Amino acid sequence: MAFSSWFSRLRSSSKPVYNNLRHSFFYKHRTHSNIREVLNPDKKHAPILSWASSLVPVAFAVYAGSLALETQNNPSFCDASNLDHREVSIGGKGSTDYLVRGSHKDVPQELIDDLMAICPENVTMDYDERYFHGKPQNSFHKAVNIPDVVVFPRSADEVSKIVKSCDKHKVPIVPYGGATSIEGHTLSPNGGVCIDMTLMKSIKSLHVEDMDVVVEPGIGWMELNEYLEPFGLFFPLDPGPGATIGGMCATRCSGSLAVRYGTMRDNVINLKVVLHNGDIVKTGSRARKSAAGYDLTRLLIGSEGTLGVITEVTLRLQRIPQHSVVAMCNFPTIKDAADVAIATMLSGIQVSRVELLDEVQVKAVNLANGKNLPEVPTLMFEFIGTEAYSREQTLIVQKIASEHNGSDFVFAEDPEAKKELWKIRKEALWACFALEPNFEAMISDVCVPLSCLAELITRSKQELDASPLVCTVIAHAGDGNFHTVILFDPKQEDQRQEAERLNHFMVHTALSMEGTCTGEHGVGTGKMKYLEEELGIEALMTMKKIKAALDPNNIMNPGKLIPPHVCF
Amino acid sequence: MAFSSWFSRLRSSSKPVYNNLRHSFFYKHRTHSNIREVLNPDKKHAPILSWASSLVPVAFAVYAGSLALETQNNPSFCDASNLDHREVSIGGKGSTDYLVRGSHKDVPQELIDDLMAICPENVTMDYDERYFHGKPQNSFHKAVNIPDVVVFPRSADEVSKIVKSCDKHKVPIVPYGGATSIEGHTLSPNGGVCIDMTLMKSIKSLHVEDMDVVVEPGIGWMELNEYLEPFGLFFPLDPGPGATIGGMCATRCSGSLAVRYGTMRDNVINLKVVLHNGDIVKTGSRARKSAAGYDLTRLLIGSEGTLGVITEVTLRLQRIPQHSVVAMCNFPTIKDAADVAIATMLSGIQVSRVELLDEVQVKAVNLANGKNLPEVPTLMFEFIGTEAYSREQTLIVQKIASEHNGSDFVFAEDPEAKKELWKIRKEALWACFALEPNFEAMISDVCVPLSCLAELITRSKQELDASPLVCTVIAHAGDGNFHTVILFDPKQEDQRQEAERLNHFMVHTALSMEGTCTGEHGVGTGKMKYLEEELGIEALMTMKKIKAALDPNNIMNPGKLIPPHVCF
Repeated sequence: MAFSSWFSRLRSSSKPVYNNLRHSFFYKHRTHSNIREVLNPDKKHAPILSWASSLVPVAFAVYAGSLALETQNNPSFCDASNLDHREVSIGGKGSTDYLVRGSHKDVPQELIDDLMAICPENVTMDYDERYFHGKPQNSFHKAVNIPDVVVFPRSADEVSKIVKSCDKHKVPIVPYGGATSIEGHTLSPNGGVCIDMTLMKSIKSLHVEDMDVVVEPGIGWMELNEYLEPFGLFFPLDPGPGATIGGMCATRCSGSLAVRYGTMRDNVINLKVVLHNGDIVKTGSRARKSAAGYDLTRLLIGSEGTLGVITEVTLRLQRIPQHSVVAMCNFPTIKDAADVAIATMLSGIQVSRVELLDEVQVKAVNLANGKNLPEVPTLMFEFIGTEAYSREQTLIVQKIASEHNGSDFVFAEDPEAKKELWKIRKEALWACFALEPNFEAMISDVCVPLSCLAELITRSKQELDASPLVCTVIAHAGDGNFHTVILFDPKQEDQRQEAERLNHFMVHTALSMEGTCTGEHGVGTGKMKYLEEELGIEALMTMKKIKAALDPNNIMNPGKLIPPHVCF
Repeated sequence: MAFSSWFSRLRSSSKPVYNNLRHSFFYKHRTHSNIREVLNPDKKHAPILSWASSLVPVAFAVYAGSLALETQNNPSFCDASNLDHREVSIGGKGSTDYLVRGSHKDVPQELIDDLMAICPENVTMDYDERYFHGKPQNSFHKAVNIPDVVVFPRSADEVSKIVKSCDKHKVPIVPYGGATSIEGHTLSPNGGVCIDMTLMKSIKSLHVEDMDVVVEPGIGWMELNEYLEPFGLFFPLDPGPGATIGGMCATRCSGSLAVRYGTMRDNVINLKVVLHNGDIVKTGSRARKSAAGYDLTRLLIGSEGTLGVITEVTLRLQRIPQHSVVAMCNFPTIKDAADVAIATMLSGIQVSRVELLDEVQVKAVNLANGKNLPEVPTLMFEFIGTEAYSREQTLIVQKIASEHNGSDFVFAEDPEAKKELWKIRKEALWACFALEPNFEAMISDVCVPLSCLAELITRSKQELDASPLVCTVIAHAGDGNFHTVILFDPKQEDQRQEAERLNHFMVHTALSMEGTCTGEHGVGTGKMKYLEEELGIEALMTMKKIKAALDPNNIMNPGKLIPPHVCF
């Protein structure tokens, strides 16, 4: 699960409050915007940091030094030097910093005129709106700039014109959805134009017999599922509540149901995407499978807005299961719990969820919700199918658990009881802040081959438990996907650095096990520095070649995903 | 299912005979090759047709004319004109021809010397061997040239050196596996170097607990499954028997089990791939899911050798089901049968196979196998899971079938009875030739959204039944994937043209239903002409940009997948 929206909930006390907050920003600044306001924006707030700001940490200077050296030794690196908005993010190789730097140039008036002509009612340069879009609440990472302009297109045609104009002026764009991502995906380190897609949220067509739906990218997955429920269908990806379908495509997200239904990679049939030159590309037909040409759908899924702006998504849907059982079981050690997850997967049973919570996480749940659960490693399952099959699976897994020191195996079939049981997992991240109410969280995820999960969690737990910081562990254990929530006092730089150190430890341990630095949260700026170790420079050069071919002016979310030291 | 290997079986009477045939070619010409033979190949057989051959059909001249016109009007088209081996295949837009044309230049002696130095025992220029590699038995399409050299590398390092040398000399390469594809993927219309990967067939590591295996690309899926069986695991893709894992990746194949387990897209964890410059790229970690960067794995799967040569594949495996039930049911009309397939999918049941055979196909089965099945549209199912669940699913589907005029519902649980029942489907293509023993077959596949399957089959059947040719229909009905086998006398040009016309009709009907021109067989040269209608020119230009970025000298299987008229 992408935890980001839980985080939003904490910060805004409740989801409705958060939504109201967004609406107040939105309507205050956008619906009242007019040409005069746009052309004479409130300039009293300058971008927080300029290119040469003294606030840039020393560590960046060190990195910038090595960058300069690389540039000298490898002239091909300079191929991008003619770009107006060259990426100089510090999230690159070897960097341990969280502040994302970028170059900034004023947006040409001609571009602003273009944007006003394209969507006259939906362009703003109001500072508060720009600040809101440049400082996602959920990101551990911060940027030195915020967008110069925010636009809210209403159609693919408008997106096409916006992007084409930005390309002409070589001004960076950052596509923006629910902004629930947590690796800095929606930061605007180079300023530029933020394209907020949340007005494009219609359901264009539902095909019940084909079990697919065509939507605009700004719709949230929860809204979509509310719409689908009467048809007996649902979309089986469940990241944080505020996530939009477009953002979920862009980050290749998954969630707790991925063990059964796969990730966004597996659940998108096709996309429509606006490329740098304004071309609208359809990536596939509506057939469930196809061998017709390069898999542009999958290339775009997970590309984090660096190749194109998604304007339409055709999603594969699932039938709401006839029946489900939710079960919970306690274990003396985290290894026992992980071993049961592995044994369950090896049994051939197709569980729909296998979630692992460590004892600290359970403690947080108790504190936050007034529960009295045993504060030990805990596994939660969901089994689906016919009534008989759901029960059969439950009994098989109960037996597996008992063979691995499991105790207190409980399960529920009654809808209310299931809801109560599953609430524990659903509110896990939210509950963390009960442990340290005034702290921020660094949330990270890695994923390893299943057999390594127990060892990875055990080794990580040793490090986390030895740290002065409070850290919890939650895993989508059936996928080998493992999350930590590391709570730190944002006023204490040493605590922030300790959080980073723990994250580094976890990522490097996962990589040493042939794992990945991110199973579902994406790269953004936060995970760029690990990609070379994970994939090798040849893979990154290949990505860079693709990026250069499809975005020659480097306007599409520059400074994200591909580490800046990669050249070809 | 990719039917190609069934075709091979026909041609060689039986699989062992076919294998012996291949071995005899292989050992005769390769193991006896030596430097003298390679440097002084038997030159008595020239390539069959030269660039300006008078045998090129009139239709090509028409197409070439339009090509020249496009070149004049769009100078960017000429970007590729500096290539030594420019693609001039006739499988492009509007073409209805099956003969694949290409340019041919002599392979430089320096390259031959390089190849000899890289794998001295495994290079040949023997005519029979080159002919064998240039004329795949299963392809409806033929090429005007055959490879100039065939190499059989034994390691990724050798592949890297071969490709790098070919790139230096701008000589085309064609990767070659089981050669069971049927859309002309392994043709060498430009001559050049055929890289036969079948010596690279080792199983590098099996991870039982992770349910994955790392293999070299030359291994066949059937050999792999023989190896995996004692571990209780299997790889769930089942194209024609001779297909290799590398070729299956390259064509994004699937098969009858895709309805349950997905296609190659869903079952490959990562790849190692040699790029044009010899770089060996690792496309991902061994984690089950990852959000770390562009999905190079999926970009390469289905790229048909046009972006790189696959040298290693990590495959996701499945547990062999505890229990299975095979069932069969008859219907008065093809629409009834298709409707039951749709209703089954909508019921939420996860069948592992739903296969549809039309009455002509059943007639062929009766003729070939001495059976006495009712010659009516027939559905075959496989249900898997626990014993109880398999039976439960069977009964649910039996009820669905009875509500749609199904009759004679039979099912089997005994291993021998299941084998006997499933044999009917497994040998379906093989059986077709019992209808016309001396004919060739044009085999094609399309895929549509599930709700359109009944109408597509009904409309196609009207056209097929009205044709003087004998045509059978087989569908992976749960995926909306539909195949025809059109038998024609290769000596009768009008029959060949009629086969093409029927194929066109079926493809265009599928495209009009938001379907794809190929669900699992791939593009090769045969389906290029439909891609623009399916995806639009913008998508094809995007593919071409990626191709140009990753293969600047256009040496990787040129003339395949991307229609030659596409420019940017």
